[in-house]
Amino acid sequence: MSKRISVAELTRFSVDALTGAGMTPSDAQTVADVLVTTDTWGTFSHGTGALATYIRTMGSGGIARCAKPEVVGEGTAWAIVDGHCAMGMLSSSLAMNLAIQKAQENTIAWVGVRNGSHFGAAGYYATMAAQRDMVGIAMSNADPNMVIPGARGHVIGNNPISYAVPTGSEHPLMLDIALSAVAAGKIFAMKEQGQSIPPSWLTDADGLPTCEIGEWPQTGSMLPMAGHKGYGIAVLVEVLAGVLTGAGVLSGVKSWVLQPEERSQLGQAFIAINVGAIVPLREFTRRVDHVIQELRQAPKAKGSDRIYVPGEMEWAKREDALKNGIELPDPVYASLERLGQQLGIELQAA
Amino acid sequence: MSKRISVAELTRFSVDALTGAGMTPSDAQTVADVLVTTDTWGTFSHGTGALATYIRTMGSGGIARCAKPEVVGEGTAWAIVDGHCAMGMLSSSLAMNLAIQKAQENTIAWVGVRNGSHFGAAGYYATMAAQRDMVGIAMSNADPNMVIPGARGHVIGNNPISYAVPTGSEHPLMLDIALSAVAAGKIFAMKEQGQSIPPSWLTDADGLPTCEIGEWPQTGSMLPMAGHKGYGIAVLVEVLAGVLTGAGVLSGVKSWVLQPEERSQLGQAFIAINVGAIVPLREFTRRVDHVIQELRQAPKAKGSDRIYVPGEMEWAKREDALKNGIELPDPVYASLERLGQQLGIELQAA
Repeated sequence: MSKRISVAELTRFSVDALTGAGMTPSDAQTVADVLVTTDTWGTFSHGTGALATYIRTMGSGGIARCAKPEVVGEGTAWAIVDGHCAMGMLSSSLAMNLAIQKAQENTIAWVGVRNGSHFGAAGYYATMAAQRDMVGIAMSNADPNMVIPGARGHVIGNNPISYAVPTGSEHPLMLDIALSAVAAGKIFAMKEQGQSIPPSWLTDADGLPTCEIGEWPQTGSMLPMAGHKGYGIAVLVEVLAGVLTGAGVLSGVKSWVLQPEERSQLGQAFIAINVGAIVPLREFTRRVDHVIQELRQAPKAKGSDRIYVPGEMEWAKREDALKNGIELPDPVYASLERLGQQLGIELQAA
Repeated sequence: MSKRISVAELTRFSVDALTGAGMTPSDAQTVADVLVTTDTWGTFSHGTGALATYIRTMGSGGIARCAKPEVVGEGTAWAIVDGHCAMGMLSSSLAMNLAIQKAQENTIAWVGVRNGSHFGAAGYYATMAAQRDMVGIAMSNADPNMVIPGARGHVIGNNPISYAVPTGSEHPLMLDIALSAVAAGKIFAMKEQGQSIPPSWLTDADGLPTCEIGEWPQTGSMLPMAGHKGYGIAVLVEVLAGVLTGAGVLSGVKSWVLQPEERSQLGQAFIAINVGAIVPLREFTRRVDHVIQELRQAPKAKGSDRIYVPGEMEWAKREDALKNGIELPDPVYASLERLGQQLGIELQAA
């Protein structure tokens, strides 16, 4: 049984949980906004369902609950933020805000994060830029959880990447993807149900495609989306978010879930493009709206009655969530209830 | 039977063919360098095998043989080039050179092209930046040749995107991909051989996945790589290369092959990131080399004896081509011979 919780109540609960775990109210608010916004999109894998794990990792020392991210290098069009292993939402929000600010003066800006932590859903930061009339791009490396062509085992992260584009009368275009063929969460869910999978999702202990989930993730590894193409894009993210920032790369990145006592050394990168400095903003947004309309009005496939543009499903869910509350899936609700019991705070259904 | 042709001879032939078709020697040299470099990588779909088609489209008016691309707007960190429908290699080389120049001052720069034409292999331009110690990103929209989820027929281009990354002792990392599940050329080749295909490549007239090539490309359409993920990335390219530049978008882009009398209205976008302005260049390239080594040394899959990093195969082929000549596939060699006969110029095998 799923429960609807209002956005305000879920935010209140999250802030209370995070301050209970030792964060300042202001930092807790920043983190809660990322997680609850992600839940409103229906992306529950990256929302408040992860609160308990973040708090556990803070307790184990892998995330520094009181650290303050700091700008350690900058120019007119770039900056590097040292996250000091604080919650990733703090360093990432700071970084994207800085990119937006620099793009206001400079049209385009890149800001990277080193000593980062898991930043939640990349789409949150890309959307920050779109809400300021800029194209936003956000990416992070990840602890190795994906194989590469010719290899076996975990070699590179399924490095998430996201963009958002400002529009006229439409919601921002938004895409937020990991570079594995499918999300790990989906495979875990199918494993629990004892299902087999298509051969494009996982490799076995030998590094060969398999339809059996088997002992994954202990042995075997996720396949990149689109084979060498997804692998290639993952390497670009590793370069821009890991190498260029001075963060950990590949095996130097640790899992914030499985190694909660270790600092993850994640890296992130954020790009903002101030489109209104290049062409009149209205002309740009009118043309984006035209693209959206043309995509939506394409002839439909047999059995299809609707075409979605990137982000459209998420914004529709958010509208519903803001009006009617968020319908949390059972496992998320249960994890929040357990967390509330531990911390002595209560989650009120709407 | 394939024929080995030296790089110098293939370049000489290409320049002669292009000047014969009315281009200036200097412009012809620029175009020839893009096409022959692409052949050295073994990417024959985008090399001199396309010379005859470019020349035919110039003859039909879709490409303006003597037009000079022009910078029509710029700031410290950006520019827009009007390609005036000249050969795409001219406007794109100008644009990437401008991006590199602006990134030298400004760390990061974006340059777009409107009224563009087909630019050949995106990887050529990304590599220009890597050779100047910058991360280069190059992308183009394309005439609609790909379906999107829920639709049938051609809705969006399989918009190519490429990056290149400078390294220390290694060749640049380089990826150059189109966003369809597979290249159209591969499907054409299998069609000729009467083969069937995996269901992730094409949709039929109803927009449903099919294993039969059938009447494609008249009916049916290529599927995006990785489903909604490839679709989403194609939309980003459409925004950065089409919308932001003022080029054609979606159905506003015409095929330079099938509609040779029409100007294609393609758009391109180029980004250069001057990594040495952010971190010491040597530190950056040392770290990239470390990533390359770690990828290469990952445990091998059963039956695999080698792992390649992005671009490695292309650079190996290029080394061989520079030493021993380019081994042109039969259809490429035959098309060059026919073109030579038309223009009264000869191609000498090495």
